[in-house]
Amino acid sequence: MYIEQLGEAGLIQRIKRKIPSDDPSIVLGIGDDAAIIHSSKRDLLLSTDTIREDVHFSRKYYSFYDIGWKAVAVSISDIAAMGGVPKYLLLSMAMPDKVSVKDMDKLLDGVAGISAKYNVSVVGGNLSRSKQGIAVDTTIVGEVSGGRALLRSGAGIGDMIYVTGCPGMSAIGLSILKRVPVPKRGGKSFVTAHLRPEPRVSAGLVLSKSKSATAAIDISDGLLADLGHICERSKVGARIYSGLLPLPEVPDSIRKILAKEPLYYALYGGEDYELLFTVRPEKSAEFESLCRQQDVRYTMIGQIEPSEEGIRLVNEDNKESVIEPYGYDHFKSGRRRLC
Amino acid sequence: MYIEQLGEAGLIQRIKRKIPSDDPSIVLGIGDDAAIIHSSKRDLLLSTDTIREDVHFSRKYYSFYDIGWKAVAVSISDIAAMGGVPKYLLLSMAMPDKVSVKDMDKLLDGVAGISAKYNVSVVGGNLSRSKQGIAVDTTIVGEVSGGRALLRSGAGIGDMIYVTGCPGMSAIGLSILKRVPVPKRGGKSFVTAHLRPEPRVSAGLVLSKSKSATAAIDISDGLLADLGHICERSKVGARIYSGLLPLPEVPDSIRKILAKEPLYYALYGGEDYELLFTVRPEKSAEFESLCRQQDVRYTMIGQIEPSEEGIRLVNEDNKESVIEPYGYDHFKSGRRRLC
Repeated sequence: MYIEQLGEAGLIQRIKRKIPSDDPSIVLGIGDDAAIIHSSKRDLLLSTDTIREDVHFSRKYYSFYDIGWKAVAVSISDIAAMGGVPKYLLLSMAMPDKVSVKDMDKLLDGVAGISAKYNVSVVGGNLSRSKQGIAVDTTIVGEVSGGRALLRSGAGIGDMIYVTGCPGMSAIGLSILKRVPVPKRGGKSFVTAHLRPEPRVSAGLVLSKSKSATAAIDISDGLLADLGHICERSKVGARIYSGLLPLPEVPDSIRKILAKEPLYYALYGGEDYELLFTVRPEKSAEFESLCRQQDVRYTMIGQIEPSEEGIRLVNEDNKESVIEPYGYDHFKSGRRRLC
Repeated sequence: MYIEQLGEAGLIQRIKRKIPSDDPSIVLGIGDDAAIIHSSKRDLLLSTDTIREDVHFSRKYYSFYDIGWKAVAVSISDIAAMGGVPKYLLLSMAMPDKVSVKDMDKLLDGVAGISAKYNVSVVGGNLSRSKQGIAVDTTIVGEVSGGRALLRSGAGIGDMIYVTGCPGMSAIGLSILKRVPVPKRGGKSFVTAHLRPEPRVSAGLVLSKSKSATAAIDISDGLLADLGHICERSKVGARIYSGLLPLPEVPDSIRKILAKEPLYYALYGGEDYELLFTVRPEKSAEFESLCRQQDVRYTMIGQIEPSEEGIRLVNEDNKESVIEPYGYDHFKSGRRRLC
């Protein structure tokens, strides 16, 4: 059997089984957005992520600045999804020989740009030669008050499901970038969402400080796929209302080149790095009021249901359908990826 | 200008300049074996390393178990070189689709094997698809008592230079593995040194607990190259006595297939993951006595000199020569790598 048949979840299960650990200071190991290490009052969050040329990005669309930005953004987003403060970054770059110093500098400018914006310090890294393509691995260390980290596993029946921002923007952005020629007008915000995502650190902090959220994840695989992760870990189902989803406003010039409706991108598009989370109904009003104070953009999109309900989508005619929460899987090539 | 002309040191300088940081809890950022983050009584050590197929290893010689073992060994070694205790590991793997689950399992067995041996917990990671070749990035978190980390920068004139174990074993091992056909007898210890290096965690702990060492590094690039790193960071020179070097005992069956003398491998061979360190003369006897108690194998090989002396090698006829501490550089293709 090849690893492509096993899929990413299967591989992770295998790693957990083969490499168990029983260190009592590990609050949470493999399987969430980050690991939690207990360290006096504040817990440490540890997470690692990679972006690889021609797997996660193409130099056809990405500037070197974009590559640097996004490599760090995806890691910061994991800390945001845990409700933590991103602190320290390790940057590991594999580079082909024939990358110019000028381009390398631009990549570092991208790293520096997002690191400065989110107060992250680059404390180490590694450089190696690559035979083919650029790969940037980032490992981030974050902090969170003891016991306040947002896990994927705490969603309970009746909890409200929320999302920040506007999922689908990034996938629409990628569709625009892949178009030849790239449409000149109306696509900028989508393209920016794809190339230079903004991790939702403040939203995560509001959630962890207010103790409102019962579960949280960042949308890297797609809204439904990541909702699927929450449901799986929390052993619950969910009902999402398509009429409640904050759909991207797509101008006609862009809509005509898209293969699908905006709803489709919102549900299945990945790499948005918005937060998807659940809040107990009695905490909901307090949470919404806090978000308004802190300028966090959020939308309630559904509710947690018993697990036997699965994940259901209610359309605007009130018709329900059970949906499979598929999305991006690095190894299961049978599943498809949007755009 | 291409990055291969800039070299690894030039690239690291560039990163430090472009991405500065001023967080007061960062005791030490980029440039040593690991970063140090101050965290109450114990400081955290953070380091990341990569091994990539056909750059750092070949599947012709490495089993999947070896790949897993070595990927973790190189990171643990960075913590050893800081005098710390390795604790948590993040494992980031890029895999081609057509890796079998059986082989993947063997790689994980290698990770599990060395992690169990050195009490390291794998707390997270990342899986991505690779278009070409396997790459394993490891990030390790270690701990060290506050202020006790071993830096590269503290060597002073007159300090004794020590090395653990027997440098050169790994490079000889690689030469044996590259030989077609691989010689059947006499090569096992060399090959094992190359494929499954043992990071010198206990030696590092003796050094940091006894406060004996003024500077330390692990030999990944080669003894002279890594001595060069200590000298550069400590702004000193060094005198090494070839007669003092613990040379590998090479059986005739192996010696006849080697391109160079054992001394050459000891000085220039990389990937030994032995520790190279300096000790103040007045601490030397106490340190040696401790090592004997703890079963740490060490050899005194020279002394720190003023920087204007450069790095000198004294041969067995008492003739001195100034040597350039070259070794492996990932990007300067003009420099050569042994074997």
